Amino acid sequence: MTTVRVAGVGLTHFGTHPERTSRDLFAEAGLTALEDAGVDRDDVEAVYYGNFMGELSEHQGHQGPLAAEALGVQAPATRYESACASSGVALRQAVRDVRNGEADLAVVGGAERMNNLSTAESTEALAIAADDLYEVRAGVTFPGAYAMMATAYFDQFGGTREDLAHIAVKNHENALVNEHAQYQREISVEEALDSPPVADPLHLYDACPVTDGASVVVLASESYADEHDLDAGVAITGTGQGGDMMALHDREDVATSPAATAAAEEAYADAGVAAGDVDVAEVHDCFTIAEVLATESLGFFETGEGVTAARDGVTTQRGDLPVNLSGGLKAKGHPVGATGTSQVAELTKLLQGDHVNSKYVPDARVGVAHNAGGTVASAVVHVMEAVE
Amino acid sequence: MTTVRVAGVGLTHFGTHPERTSRDLFAEAGLTALEDAGVDRDDVEAVYYGNFMGELSEHQGHQGPLAAEALGVQAPATRYESACASSGVALRQAVRDVRNGEADLAVVGGAERMNNLSTAESTEALAIAADDLYEVRAGVTFPGAYAMMATAYFDQFGGTREDLAHIAVKNHENALVNEHAQYQREISVEEALDSPPVADPLHLYDACPVTDGASVVVLASESYADEHDLDAGVAITGTGQGGDMMALHDREDVATSPAATAAAEEAYADAGVAAGDVDVAEVHDCFTIAEVLATESLGFFETGEGVTAARDGVTTQRGDLPVNLSGGLKAKGHPVGATGTSQVAELTKLLQGDHVNSKYVPDARVGVAHNAGGTVASAVVHVMEAVE
Repeated sequence: MTTVRVAGVGLTHFGTHPERTSRDLFAEAGLTALEDAGVDRDDVEAVYYGNFMGELSEHQGHQGPLAAEALGVQAPATRYESACASSGVALRQAVRDVRNGEADLAVVGGAERMNNLSTAESTEALAIAADDLYEVRAGVTFPGAYAMMATAYFDQFGGTREDLAHIAVKNHENALVNEHAQYQREISVEEALDSPPVADPLHLYDACPVTDGASVVVLASESYADEHDLDAGVAITGTGQGGDMMALHDREDVATSPAATAAAEEAYADAGVAAGDVDVAEVHDCFTIAEVLATESLGFFETGEGVTAARDGVTTQRGDLPVNLSGGLKAKGHPVGATGTSQVAELTKLLQGDHVNSKYVPDARVGVAHNAGGTVASAVVHVMEAVE
Repeated sequence: MTTVRVAGVGLTHFGTHPERTSRDLFAEAGLTALEDAGVDRDDVEAVYYGNFMGELSEHQGHQGPLAAEALGVQAPATRYESACASSGVALRQAVRDVRNGEADLAVVGGAERMNNLSTAESTEALAIAADDLYEVRAGVTFPGAYAMMATAYFDQFGGTREDLAHIAVKNHENALVNEHAQYQREISVEEALDSPPVADPLHLYDACPVTDGASVVVLASESYADEHDLDAGVAITGTGQGGDMMALHDREDVATSPAATAAAEEAYADAGVAAGDVDVAEVHDCFTIAEVLATESLGFFETGEGVTAARDGVTTQRGDLPVNLSGGLKAKGHPVGATGTSQVAELTKLLQGDHVNSKYVPDARVGVAHNAGGTVASAVVHVMEAVE
């Protein structure tokens, strides 16, 4: 088994791109990543592509071949769909294939175009990540589903809207200098609290925006990286995936996310690290409450303590364990199929010391990426380590 | 690297199931396969699920967790989408993971519900397997695309509508006794020729039907199979995948399918067999011309000779190399996301000697499955061998 190196990364600006298709966005991110890696695209042996709502937003399925074509790569290409964890599961498969010798050089990424839909259409499109028969038809949308999770959490463990607002404020602060971020502006706790209600207890500033964008990472086997003298000092050393019942009402408890806990445990064991070894993390904060659940699943805090940690500033730039230094889904944006590999792109730069926010984690050696699908019916966790 | 055994298979009836969802169909096929395998579902470590048009036909994405849930399996589950090759690519990934020690027991399958759509809607939904921007908006549908391929083929290599009709007649003959088949009735060459034109030179009987159905195969590592004394005498010994430009107009030649040729070459090399070793094959005959292209890509016949072989009956029940003894997509049916693993289920029974059409290949040791996406912009080939 070889070590899997991140050879290059690429991101588009996350935001509103009314004139651009997802394949166009993917081409930009992918060509950036290939150039960053300094590899010959003819060497690429496979393309792993994540996309969630292409059928609904662009009337396009079978996007694997289009993703390869967008990069001028002639290689087998497959599209992975696991709702908001689409490029996370694509990455997991690529990591496995590279370390098992099935490919020496692989392109993994995702793209999503969402803003060409109306708000009603994108809400409806996002809803298909929940159980259509038993949740969506009963009126559940994602703000509603996460509001139920927040309500259950507050009920079981305590916490307030103000605690959650600290997460929104933190992630906006982190995004301020990230040129890829959809929102480069600070917000205050008061603004977050005063923002319009969406689904009680969640208000507008508890939610991530609707985003167009793409992200790509180039993976290389250690031998390929050595042979071609690549600058690839970050390795993906652990991968884990978990699953849960799709509908919230089928779960024993909705104030925790066991699929993510399982994914984290598998990824840590795979890498041979513990939660306490982690220096920096990118987690799936589609809503502020989701970041609380994520930090608990990752073992950073005990169950029920994630909200306290958020209130106390543990995960801020100046805290002990900075979370979402990119700005997270909340402020950097959430182009659904692109989010998983976007987290890995950000962590790569953070661990290499060349991220705009690297100064907050100057000695970081271990990073973790947490990507969730739906109401965490799917979860993927990856451990990354600086190896050079 | 361990050998990957097929421990069990399950199929629904392929046809029209107006009252059943894809998850319901998947549950039937999956529970049949688990029972056939005689394994404990708690041992299943991963679910690989293929589906193409769930977003459009059932307003449902994120189907991985639903697939696991349908079987009562608690394991990570991922949905693969590669148009008509969706469960074929899911299978490839499962085969790699099992042989590389990532899982000892895996469930792979697919399901599709299509007949709840009107003919116009399903034609439109199928079209998204082509390039929406440059083909679909110009009026291309799949019968039209394959008609262009047939026209190019006839132009370069010769052949007639009557030659293609022999393929339809053969596959209907094979399906006659297959209880899973959508059409269990014989047709004549004259009937095929007299059927209504769809897109010249293709007529109605050159095309596969619109089908609801599901298929599942259970894969086990050799060690798991031995330890649990499973009856698993068929192994998947080779896997290959190829990719091509999405749109026909971007290819140098549309009378051949290089993605399938690449997939076949990789799969043969992987298994250490040659085309001449193959005793029986299931190929992707979404249209009669597609079976011609498939048999050439698989190396059974020289380029341009597939149509001659069809005319001469080489691939019939009584021929030297029976193709699509199940009835193929043409007569057994084509529930898009279920087709890839359905081929493997049929071949498993053929190689085990317990298929209703096994008598035509009593000594078969090597089988090949060929699954294609779109106009063969994606292709997956698997080699299967009787090992006990």
